[in-house]
Amino acid sequence: MARDKKKTDKVEPRVLKGFRDYLPREQIAREAMLSKVREVFELAGFLPYRTAALEHAEALLGPQYSRDSLAELFGFTGPDDVDMALRYELTLSLARYVAGNPDLPLPFRCYQYGPVWRVDKPGPGRFREFMQCDIDIVGAQNLFADAEIIAVMVNIFEHLGIRDFRVRYSNRKIHNGLVQYAGISEAVGPDVMRVIDKLERQGRDAVMLELGPGRVDKSGDEIPGLGLEDGQIVQIGSFLDTVAEEGGDPLEKAASLLAGATVAEEGIAELREIQRHLKAMEVDETKTGVDLTVVRGLAYYTGPVFETSLLKLPDFGSVFSGGRYDNLVDRFLSRPIPAVGASMGIDRLLAALIELKALKLSEATSQVLVTVMDRQRLPDYLAILRKLRRAGIRSEVYSGDTKNLTRQLKYADRVGIPFAVIAGSDEFDAGTVTVKNLAAGREKAVATADREQWLKAEEIQQTIPVAVLVDYLNKHLGKDG
Amino acid sequence: MARDKKKTDKVEPRVLKGFRDYLPREQIAREAMLSKVREVFELAGFLPYRTAALEHAEALLGPQYSRDSLAELFGFTGPDDVDMALRYELTLSLARYVAGNPDLPLPFRCYQYGPVWRVDKPGPGRFREFMQCDIDIVGAQNLFADAEIIAVMVNIFEHLGIRDFRVRYSNRKIHNGLVQYAGISEAVGPDVMRVIDKLERQGRDAVMLELGPGRVDKSGDEIPGLGLEDGQIVQIGSFLDTVAEEGGDPLEKAASLLAGATVAEEGIAELREIQRHLKAMEVDETKTGVDLTVVRGLAYYTGPVFETSLLKLPDFGSVFSGGRYDNLVDRFLSRPIPAVGASMGIDRLLAALIELKALKLSEATSQVLVTVMDRQRLPDYLAILRKLRRAGIRSEVYSGDTKNLTRQLKYADRVGIPFAVIAGSDEFDAGTVTVKNLAAGREKAVATADREQWLKAEEIQQTIPVAVLVDYLNKHLGKDG
Repeated sequence: MARDKKKTDKVEPRVLKGFRDYLPREQIAREAMLSKVREVFELAGFLPYRTAALEHAEALLGPQYSRDSLAELFGFTGPDDVDMALRYELTLSLARYVAGNPDLPLPFRCYQYGPVWRVDKPGPGRFREFMQCDIDIVGAQNLFADAEIIAVMVNIFEHLGIRDFRVRYSNRKIHNGLVQYAGISEAVGPDVMRVIDKLERQGRDAVMLELGPGRVDKSGDEIPGLGLEDGQIVQIGSFLDTVAEEGGDPLEKAASLLAGATVAEEGIAELREIQRHLKAMEVDETKTGVDLTVVRGLAYYTGPVFETSLLKLPDFGSVFSGGRYDNLVDRFLSRPIPAVGASMGIDRLLAALIELKALKLSEATSQVLVTVMDRQRLPDYLAILRKLRRAGIRSEVYSGDTKNLTRQLKYADRVGIPFAVIAGSDEFDAGTVTVKNLAAGREKAVATADREQWLKAEEIQQTIPVAVLVDYLNKHLGKDG
Repeated sequence: MARDKKKTDKVEPRVLKGFRDYLPREQIAREAMLSKVREVFELAGFLPYRTAALEHAEALLGPQYSRDSLAELFGFTGPDDVDMALRYELTLSLARYVAGNPDLPLPFRCYQYGPVWRVDKPGPGRFREFMQCDIDIVGAQNLFADAEIIAVMVNIFEHLGIRDFRVRYSNRKIHNGLVQYAGISEAVGPDVMRVIDKLERQGRDAVMLELGPGRVDKSGDEIPGLGLEDGQIVQIGSFLDTVAEEGGDPLEKAASLLAGATVAEEGIAELREIQRHLKAMEVDETKTGVDLTVVRGLAYYTGPVFETSLLKLPDFGSVFSGGRYDNLVDRFLSRPIPAVGASMGIDRLLAALIELKALKLSEATSQVLVTVMDRQRLPDYLAILRKLRRAGIRSEVYSGDTKNLTRQLKYADRVGIPFAVIAGSDEFDAGTVTVKNLAAGREKAVATADREQWLKAEEIQQTIPVAVLVDYLNKHLGKDG
């Protein structure tokens, strides 16, 4: 029963359902993207901070949570019989952090990036662990803060080289006005927002059914409805239709549809002020716009809300969204602290950048592999390596066990290292090395569709003195590296 | 009973026991340190990768774990009734990752950084969540790989500006030889290593007692002993004393003490080879050295082991350590894959850098605060902001709610922003702005011990035309920023 024995002895090397690893080329791209995002944040003076991944259960679930609800998160009863859970977003941790650090100078202009964990049904592009990056201004009531968040969102996309995007913004106060206007109880308001938020993903009919009797989704699951009256549903539907129609100012349309609803009027005035600020900041007008079908699903938003869509990738949904949440710190503190922010899905945006070819995927960090022809000459290979690294050229001496040159070159090929330096006794006697441009070889191989071919391509080899090797590489890495 | 009501309504804004947040000045320093570390890794061609924070319980605890042992980690039974736990180190995840990706080109020269979680007793500087950064070469049997890991360790410290450190290395094979030589059963070997590993922290007497009958520690806890015979303990003690004595080559001493123990001789020869490689790599000889009292506590090391001590901070213990682990991937795979690596405690090293003043703590990311004297002139302030940012000067317009200039300047002071730009109607009429060097003011305030003084210090103000503002700041930020 060797098979059974193996089964009990070995652990299957698998990730948890809904989890994933990042291969080097993915992680290189991710780091490159994060570093661009941070550049934009820091140019605008936002401060990095970091909170713990695990939180007290009540910080995430509220003071009256039940132990059963721990299973809605990656939650459990940990050391010292304390209930805890992995955070499912970063904003609650920020609220807890601000409340717990009363000496923090306000406004706190800040950002945090890190993984969050959700017990969602995994699917293509949907993971249970993924990275978010949040930017927030805490302790500012004025709408310039909201406009600044939108402006930073626009800057991020521009800095990442994405051209076809649009930050659409709206105001919960307008939708609260709509709920009021339709005679719907205020308590149902957050549920109405949660349902309207599905407009883009599920379509108008699904939303209308969920506002009313409920519906059955594609997989056969029953989705209960809010049971609103037909007249109320029609009012919501017609509002959404009218503000979504091309032509005309959506704010004027809303003002006329919701005339007299004070809270809606306040929301409209706020969006007009944000428009003025964006204009003063010279934010590209084609990149932002009021869209009153945007509501966001989370219950804690109290004012302006934002979403970003990638025009060429509508299926990706919103990759950067947020809004004003003036009451969230209340969970922890009696003193109200207003706040506004937005959250970026790093992994979804990374997938988008790759899809849009806005990010060059690189396999290797090394630009040069110094091959080892003769183990006795290792000190000589290391001398070459030192020269390369001192010139800032990322490089490695082959560190594997094989002495076979072809296999060493195959390693460089597979890792994606563009250049190989080869030196045997002939070269050492002549004080030269052979440089092989593997990247050019790869291009050739792609053309001839013969992977072995490039390993033999003599014309991409060049024998040069060690002294000019660095110049040669610097020149060529400028083009190929 | 307002007080009781408050108690049930509000959540106390606290972190879990043994967990912590990072304030901006800590996080800025942490990011700066990590980015230097990554520069060294990438110059040497190591590839970043990333694994999930949660793993299947059996990946961390082995195939025969019991559900009770989940509590030794932050482990729990999660969705779909699957046992899982937060990783307590990164090497097991790497082994799982390599086993699960058979197409990975070997040698896999790689690094990963990320948090790990341990159910340890929290204490000063000891946290239950902390960040590690691992560097590994997987799939290389040759000792050049071991030497390269040591060389990278040295480079890291040099690049971080730490001068007084020493990477000390040893070989488990020598200690296995010692165990054999003393007639101790091979099965007890890993336990002997675990005990000897306490030499530096607990002292010689504690180690001797733990090898024998056991001991009672400071807090009164009983620590069981291995129950070795007196003669065996004396042999171990005398070996450790002899190799630790100043003067003479520890490898020669070991060769004579353990003459005939084949495995020890093999270990000695391996260290001599590593010495030769380090010499050929021109690694500063004063920064590394053989130290046969180093064993490392983990059971999975099979050959050379490394540790780093900061000579000026002996209490910090080893901040970067590792070794060769040729059998670890065996947990997941029948095919053996040799590997060597080292793990750095990012947070402990950061604390050390701060202690050694090798890292400048910065409070702010913004270099300039543009104050808002008159909300109506916001477009003008934004025009100034644009000029600053276009020049790459990190800056913000005051985004809080107060109109009071003194309070705006206090915000800049508390956040640590070095310059403030002030413009009211007078300045706008004259086409000038007032620049206030807050950093200079802060120095003055320290001297006069009057925190309010600097806010008024007229001599650190300068009125200049808007057009020369950027030049002025660039010049001064070179010195002060």
